[in-house]
Amino acid sequence: MDAAKYNLAQRMDSLRASEIRELLKLTQRPEVISFAGGLPAAELFPAQEMAEISRRILETEGCKALQYSATEGDPTLRQQIAERMNAKQQTQVSADDILITSGSQQGLEFSAKIFIDEGDVILCESPTYLGAINAFRSYQPRFVEVETDDNGMVPEALEKALEENDRVKFIYAIPDFQNPSGRTWSLERRQALIDLSLKYGVVVLEDSPYAELRFEGEPLPALKALDKNDMVIFLGTFSKVFCPGLRCAWLAAPAPLLQRYIMVKQGADLHTSTLIQRQVASFVELHGLDDNISKVVKVYRRRRQLMLDVFAEELPKQATFTKPEGGMFLWITLPEDKSGRDLLEKCLEQNVAFVPGGAFFPNGGRENTARVNFSCMSDEKIVEGAHRFCKVMKEFLG
Amino acid sequence: MDAAKYNLAQRMDSLRASEIRELLKLTQRPEVISFAGGLPAAELFPAQEMAEISRRILETEGCKALQYSATEGDPTLRQQIAERMNAKQQTQVSADDILITSGSQQGLEFSAKIFIDEGDVILCESPTYLGAINAFRSYQPRFVEVETDDNGMVPEALEKALEENDRVKFIYAIPDFQNPSGRTWSLERRQALIDLSLKYGVVVLEDSPYAELRFEGEPLPALKALDKNDMVIFLGTFSKVFCPGLRCAWLAAPAPLLQRYIMVKQGADLHTSTLIQRQVASFVELHGLDDNISKVVKVYRRRRQLMLDVFAEELPKQATFTKPEGGMFLWITLPEDKSGRDLLEKCLEQNVAFVPGGAFFPNGGRENTARVNFSCMSDEKIVEGAHRFCKVMKEFLG
Repeated sequence: MDAAKYNLAQRMDSLRASEIRELLKLTQRPEVISFAGGLPAAELFPAQEMAEISRRILETEGCKALQYSATEGDPTLRQQIAERMNAKQQTQVSADDILITSGSQQGLEFSAKIFIDEGDVILCESPTYLGAINAFRSYQPRFVEVETDDNGMVPEALEKALEENDRVKFIYAIPDFQNPSGRTWSLERRQALIDLSLKYGVVVLEDSPYAELRFEGEPLPALKALDKNDMVIFLGTFSKVFCPGLRCAWLAAPAPLLQRYIMVKQGADLHTSTLIQRQVASFVELHGLDDNISKVVKVYRRRRQLMLDVFAEELPKQATFTKPEGGMFLWITLPEDKSGRDLLEKCLEQNVAFVPGGAFFPNGGRENTARVNFSCMSDEKIVEGAHRFCKVMKEFLG
Repeated sequence: MDAAKYNLAQRMDSLRASEIRELLKLTQRPEVISFAGGLPAAELFPAQEMAEISRRILETEGCKALQYSATEGDPTLRQQIAERMNAKQQTQVSADDILITSGSQQGLEFSAKIFIDEGDVILCESPTYLGAINAFRSYQPRFVEVETDDNGMVPEALEKALEENDRVKFIYAIPDFQNPSGRTWSLERRQALIDLSLKYGVVVLEDSPYAELRFEGEPLPALKALDKNDMVIFLGTFSKVFCPGLRCAWLAAPAPLLQRYIMVKQGADLHTSTLIQRQVASFVELHGLDDNISKVVKVYRRRRQLMLDVFAEELPKQATFTKPEGGMFLWITLPEDKSGRDLLEKCLEQNVAFVPGGAFFPNGGRENTARVNFSCMSDEKIVEGAHRFCKVMKEFLG
């Protein structure tokens, strides 16, 4: 819509509506089996437990839970998060290192605000998370995509990018079950990234929403766990291991950076909902997260396998797909002359949907890709949708 | 703390920790009667009603209330807000004009992001809201304070500022019971602002958290209600008429601008907590806001009067104070050679606190002022604190 009469900031020229968002509108017809979204399985949310917790918090500490609170976040929740990170992701953080955020998206936006001047360089995986691209882009950086294979960023390519660009502000990475590719970084690649971060004095922004959704294999240490020099900012969230609609997440950052994040948070929304933080802290205290995560992992593992089985059987061999050990997504690569956008058009005719992969490359040019979600459709729909998808693919690839 | 090893964005040089925030730390000793904060009276929050609503929402629609939702916000809540604005503030908006935000602070931050390039000019009242100064400052504008008297911005001064500055991005105003001054704009001044906004093609950002907290006199139309040319962005919130800890607010903007706000919101935090929005919408549906607001108004009116009575009796005549018809704050002006900061030091020795007014002038220089809150201390503490304050003032002014 025309905004010519309003004198907007230049940065608004760089903003575009999210492609996923627009696509999701097209895929919301009930007859469509959608592998396009990134939604957790809502039927697994512990709604009954939350009903009881909510009632009790409001009855026993309602005035406090409904009042303004500290920007840093609820002290109990920060403590719980630090303990869990240390237990599960091999970090050594304390409650004082944690800032509660309104979703990890907010941590991405704050990172952009804190680090990026126009024209600065962000190094990222190729492909990378669309929500991060959008958050960063509004501060007008230049994206340099680093060659990435099944084990993470290729260290030689990363070092070349660090050598060739003198305004690199941070390296953005999703080391576990990446959105969109489903890939996980090997330990060697993690260590190489940390070493290069130190060598070039460049901060690492680690985005870790999926690490605890591991279906098989051994957990690997977070990048933050390998960092001995205060160069890693870690973004964690309750959205994928608990409930996304709460909008409750966190970041862990070295003290001088955390102070800046707190100032930015204060200007951005004062603090995350007091009530929501109390609800999450109370759930963690009463029930823990392990049981819920086990339940989620079991279901997602099964759904992933159902999808992989159909793909192994029916997907034309010209297309390749990743076999993620966890998370919510897998990634399909088509022959170079084929476009995921064209494929989506054909798929929508058959009432099945996914996200064309081009949008996950900030500099464009890899249109022969597709992101496929396996977390939020029922087992039956996963199988039926995968059949439909493969059938369209056969025709599409000829 | 030293951040020299991190290569931050230039805008971070302009950020400073909020003075109020730092002060509040000093005033949290239990023996201090604090008129410094801006907290609503927590004992008036409808915690029991919210307990029941929370339980029921989570039991009956838990999976949906805990899932991701649309960036724009809950459709029922947007509809309720539009209807209430039209009924109470004489606007003519529809649900489609509304974006739900995580507190009005987020609306301020988004406005800055959407409009301000470095060096652009923001026109504001003098004094103006500290949280807005901080939100805007992070985008590096130049502030031009417009002469403001008891009836609002002086139109001649506003027109002069519009003529003399060619990069004015918006005029920021809090027309009802302003924070910090407690002043309310007259109808003529409102109309004059709207006329000048149109004449110069400059957007108005109307911040209206307190309008419904009117103790006496007739409600005046919002600036948004006088705007026939899509030049006003309206910020409203549930924080002062309901519960601030929820972090639930909204903005109403002309369609081409609302589209930009939605895009910015998507990049900033995807959406405001689904559960919180359902809770607020359900409370409004079941109980409405009128009863709660009546209760709050009754208490704040009484507390304001208790404070005014002590000040009228005991405050040295060299100091003047505003007599707000609503809201949460009044404003004291000291003789020009006296500093609110010095006064605060003396007050803290006597265990009473307020906020020195200097911080509310973005360009500095009016240190002989003080913001005094009357909403969040009990009647007894209001009276005792006011006595203490006047006693210190007598000594301070000699």
